[in-house]
Amino acid sequence: MYAAVIHAARDLRLDERPNPSPGPGEVLVRFGAGGICGSDLSYWGKGRVGDFALREPLVLGHEVSGEIEALGEGVSGLAVGARVAVNPSRPCLGCDYCRAGRSNLCRNMRFFGSAAMFPHVQGGFAERFTCRADQAVPVPADMPFATAALAEPLSVALHGLRRAGDLLGKRVLVAGAGPIGMLIAIAVRHAGASFVAVTDLVDEPLALARAAGADETVNVGTAPERLAAFEADKGFFDVGFEATGAPPALVSLVRCVRPGGRVVQLGMMPPGEVGVPVNMLMAQEIDLVGAFRFAEEFATAVDWLANGRIDVSPVLSAQVSMGSLSEAFELAADRRRAIKVHLYF
Amino acid sequence: MYAAVIHAARDLRLDERPNPSPGPGEVLVRFGAGGICGSDLSYWGKGRVGDFALREPLVLGHEVSGEIEALGEGVSGLAVGARVAVNPSRPCLGCDYCRAGRSNLCRNMRFFGSAAMFPHVQGGFAERFTCRADQAVPVPADMPFATAALAEPLSVALHGLRRAGDLLGKRVLVAGAGPIGMLIAIAVRHAGASFVAVTDLVDEPLALARAAGADETVNVGTAPERLAAFEADKGFFDVGFEATGAPPALVSLVRCVRPGGRVVQLGMMPPGEVGVPVNMLMAQEIDLVGAFRFAEEFATAVDWLANGRIDVSPVLSAQVSMGSLSEAFELAADRRRAIKVHLYF
Amino acid sequence: MYAAVIHAARDLRLDERPNPSPGPGEVLVRFGAGGICGSDLSYWGKGRVGDFALREPLVLGHEVSGEIEALGEGVSGLAVGARVAVNPSRPCLGCDYCRAGRSNLCRNMRFFGSAAMFPHVQGGFAERFTCRADQAVPVPADMPFATAALAEPLSVALHGLRRAGDLLGKRVLVAGAGPIGMLIAIAVRHAGASFVAVTDLVDEPLALARAAGADETVNVGTAPERLAAFEADKGFFDVGFEATGAPPALVSLVRCVRPGGRVVQLGMMPPGEVGVPVNMLMAQEIDLVGAFRFAEEFATAVDWLANGRIDVSPVLSAQVSMGSLSEAFELAADRRRAIKVHLYF
Amino acid sequence: MYAAVIHAARDLRLDERPNPSPGPGEVLVRFGAGGICGSDLSYWGKGRVGDFALREPLVLGHEVSGEIEALGEGVSGLAVGARVAVNPSRPCLGCDYCRAGRSNLCRNMRFFGSAAMFPHVQGGFAERFTCRADQAVPVPADMPFATAALAEPLSVALHGLRRAGDLLGKRVLVAGAGPIGMLIAIAVRHAGASFVAVTDLVDEPLALARAAGADETVNVGTAPERLAAFEADKGFFDVGFEATGAPPALVSLVRCVRPGGRVVQLGMMPPGEVGVPVNMLMAQEIDLVGAFRFAEEFATAVDWLANGRIDVSPVLSAQVSMGSLSEAFELAADRRRAIKVHLYF
Repeated sequence: MYAAVIHAARDLRLDERPNPSPGPGEVLVRFGAGGICGSDLSYWGKGRVGDFALREPLVLGHEVSGEIEALGEGVSGLAVGARVAVNPSRPCLGCDYCRAGRSNLCRNMRFFGSAAMFPHVQGGFAERFTCRADQAVPVPADMPFATAALAEPLSVALHGLRRAGDLLGKRVLVAGAGPIGMLIAIAVRHAGASFVAVTDLVDEPLALARAAGADETVNVGTAPERLAAFEADKGFFDVGFEATGAPPALVSLVRCVRPGGRVVQLGMMPPGEVGVPVNMLMAQEIDLVGAFRFAEEFATAVDWLANGRIDVSPVLSAQVSMGSLSEAFELAADRRRAIKVHLYF
Repeated sequence: MYAAVIHAARDLRLDERPNPSPGPGEVLVRFGAGGICGSDLSYWGKGRVGDFALREPLVLGHEVSGEIEALGEGVSGLAVGARVAVNPSRPCLGCDYCRAGRSNLCRNMRFFGSAAMFPHVQGGFAERFTCRADQAVPVPADMPFATAALAEPLSVALHGLRRAGDLLGKRVLVAGAGPIGMLIAIAVRHAGASFVAVTDLVDEPLALARAAGADETVNVGTAPERLAAFEADKGFFDVGFEATGAPPALVSLVRCVRPGGRVVQLGMMPPGEVGVPVNMLMAQEIDLVGAFRFAEEFATAVDWLANGRIDVSPVLSAQVSMGSLSEAFELAADRRRAIKVHLYF
Repeated sequence: MYAAVIHAARDLRLDERPNPSPGPGEVLVRFGAGGICGSDLSYWGKGRVGDFALREPLVLGHEVSGEIEALGEGVSGLAVGARVAVNPSRPCLGCDYCRAGRSNLCRNMRFFGSAAMFPHVQGGFAERFTCRADQAVPVPADMPFATAALAEPLSVALHGLRRAGDLLGKRVLVAGAGPIGMLIAIAVRHAGASFVAVTDLVDEPLALARAAGADETVNVGTAPERLAAFEADKGFFDVGFEATGAPPALVSLVRCVRPGGRVVQLGMMPPGEVGVPVNMLMAQEIDLVGAFRFAEEFATAVDWLANGRIDVSPVLSAQVSMGSLSEAFELAADRRRAIKVHLYF
Repeated sequence: MYAAVIHAARDLRLDERPNPSPGPGEVLVRFGAGGICGSDLSYWGKGRVGDFALREPLVLGHEVSGEIEALGEGVSGLAVGARVAVNPSRPCLGCDYCRAGRSNLCRNMRFFGSAAMFPHVQGGFAERFTCRADQAVPVPADMPFATAALAEPLSVALHGLRRAGDLLGKRVLVAGAGPIGMLIAIAVRHAGASFVAVTDLVDEPLALARAAGADETVNVGTAPERLAAFEADKGFFDVGFEATGAPPALVSLVRCVRPGGRVVQLGMMPPGEVGVPVNMLMAQEIDLVGAFRFAEEFATAVDWLANGRIDVSPVLSAQVSMGSLSEAFELAADRRRAIKVHLYF
């Protein structure tokens, strides 16, 4: 079978790999669709994600869906042929974080397509792959594979919402109209927010955000004064989401969020320390909290997608064949043309 | 009558001022004792606190106690002669923050001895001063005035605890063994923490912290490696309190706090932005939250002091007469000799 | 001017009353529309609400909207002619509950149209009435008065949601398809719930609930087994709302809510004690919490109505002239014909 | 070896049983001490606990400590000879509750000495028993076995505290001066409560509660009016703990807790429904929440005992040899003579 393997920065190949077979408690999944994520793009562009550099070839991909092709020993409750969204997160379930309900912080996490451990945990951009049975979450048979693959980034967005706390009637500012920022903007509206604004440096995704229901969008490159206006009177927003990874966006969120508000950091910042207006956090009692991956939100993401609770079409930009792997990554990296690109075999 | 008035940096005088009289809903308080706070020291040393510079002479002091000498029109529930701890905080009660139970963030706060507004709100280092009746909180007649005056910094510490969330069985790191850090170290032990460590650059207050029950103290100037050891395995502490105002202390707290933990910022940092390991906040889901002054904690502080729930003697360093104002401030500023100095007439 | 005055059970009259004038800090409002609430029906049917019996004639009504006709001394930020939703809640702002952000529990609450105090606090079913300026909340000039008057019951529903905690992805059971139950069912969907079921004893409101988006409705009179099915495996729902005031509904909610879940009590039960499966609360760690009126949710309710965030048309049953007062109350009491009836002059 | 086996109500025998050996991931523990719990007394007195009746002989006991005698395959981090407190709770770690951090609600819980499952899960009153390695928690070598065995009921108490939420400065009422009530009274003081009252029907344990630091104790049998006095003004206490299992105690707690307060139900009530003043829960927004066993609190309990954070001596009533099994149970059932009785071989 074939898999999309990154060997080094800019060296992404469709390699032949042996067919896997499921161990006890695992299932074998035939690939349906796979979304290209920012971390896939980072491995492709720089050969690393943050501190984690490639040390061996790595099958990319952690936003995947497919069909169950075989069940390992002892698996029950799942059927061959079932369409599934694949949860790329495999926490150990036994460490103190797992036991405390924060399995996204698991000490022994095995996450699809990641160089955080060595040997690396291989990802899901492969014709066939295995996962623990609880990672394969059934979806309706008629759900498009690309939609099912969105369960993963939607889980990230929902986890960000959970970290933000009560959103009922809140004013929300989302920095960054990439896939995560866009899904957050869509989701907070469905979680009771009263006013949603989105910022970015690129007009095209902002237009999509507006179409997706944002009350206001601001291009902070061309009209920074429109965002600065929200800093008046100690800040306008109750909640801010940082989904760009750019330090100035974080500073701006802290300034635009009002006393007693909350800023959720989702974006990966440059390594080291980043300037934060800490006295503002102190004197205005603003919470700056991190959000990392997700835990039980995956089930909610599948539910929302299965029942059409939100319209995710603004995020589904394009589907490209594995045969055009480089074109797919080029497209995914072009923020004017795509929010989220899905691969298929 | 006389009052301790700051005219400019290093220009602190005992000025004669007219005797005040209580307006409707107010009481007249005869001064008992007054603690010198870091902000008093900042006005004295630099003529400013953070962004707030002196624009007119200001009576200093917001940690004060005394006896009620007269009641204004319409005041009930308080008696002339009653000994009181004075809550220096006078929120408007009507703004959105007051209504939401966060009166420390009041849009119209009048806080004793502060240049944040102009005309400045005069403070309590005066033979007589007035306050709204709800600011005068009765204490037992035999409570020393200096102890009663501790209700204010203890409220700040307790508010920090509340912002830290559940402390039951938690490991706590307090950066800074000044008055607030010390009171936090004492209070968290009484709030169920399992392990308490305190850091500072000066040995003398650390010795006091140890005597006050800290499980471990670290001089980060002379033995930084002892603190760094707590960074292993992504961090050891559940909760960190930043009570120094020094940027490196905040960085170190984030590094020493474990995933899912919380850092509470109480110290006033240098103006502008401060370097924070934001990716650590993100990937380890650490909360960095501000704590500013206090609200309903003042009643708890008075209760704890009145009932001897905690031993605050390590903080009560010295009492100095108003006649020796400069000596008092010199002493208060010398961290080797004093944690908290109280003035009396 | 005329006002709808209850004198005793079943003795409701359109009485002439003197025109009021606004005191300092108050505004005069000309009546637009007024919704008939369950407590209005209770005064009308039984001369009392729970423990509070009529002791003097009482102008009914606390779900009212109108137009500002005059401003009392010192009022700013409001304009004559402005259309307003009237918040019937006038907390004192100074008591411990108000200061703690729970003004709905205010010790000195003055709530429109209530016999809880004596002399009673007169209500809003009057051609003109006064209120404190902060009770008059501007709405768009083109918002129908009946919609504006819905801000009050919607606030009650939103407060129930807030007491329920995080609703993201939760399964919700609402007992009672009256105005509050219906608004809760509509609101939880907009607050991220994944599955919403509604129960009642009457088919007509259940049909409306289904039309309003409930995933499932159950007539517990004719098909109790369909509800009982949700008791399997220790319960299916994460959150239950009791909006009937009928003791068996509460028992059933506790049985249908799963371990770790939450039941919010909004309905007024018969006086005294009510049977609750307390061991189930204990062994399954279910929270049973009360929700009483509302506080800052009024602003969110107005926002949602002004911006069309939810469709409240299923609740707006009929508008009846004050001249047909008895017919209006008869209609409002007939659950087959009406959810919410509004009065107009 | 010998074990204390209950065959039917009042039929408790010291039976010979085969020596167990540890399976993979398990350890073998030699019995040190075992506390007699209310559920042990219930099996002994009535042959059942709540709905769970004996269906086969059952080794009693879930409050046990001992020494590790052998390690099963694959166990690391524990040493033969280590003194341990044994956590009787063995959650599956994989179900939704375990994953959500609420393993005390585990769908597949195996809890020592319980007839909830069939075959029953055998308990720890045996010369030797096995447990999963994570259930054996090392304690200092010089900690008395009886103290180590207290880790279990202290965990129950601490879990009750956690369910009560923030206790800083709170007024607490504990109904019931049995082992759990007593440990709660001791623990809340160490968790920052400002005022602690304890009620019971028996004077002797109340005297111990007073000695243990309760600010006030009330015999509700002989002086009910002293408790009723706390009902004035809608209630005095912020938090109530129900640790009696008697319905009137719960009613009284709800009446004595003030608006916005919280009542934690720990006691096992009679089967079926119990009368609760539900309108009071509603109109005063009181939370009634269950607390069931414990989860991660076991580690905190061991820590507090190991470091002497609280004085548990008032609870350690007597140690009785297994040879005097009946006398031990008679003593444990006599509330005038004993709070907690420990068995030893």
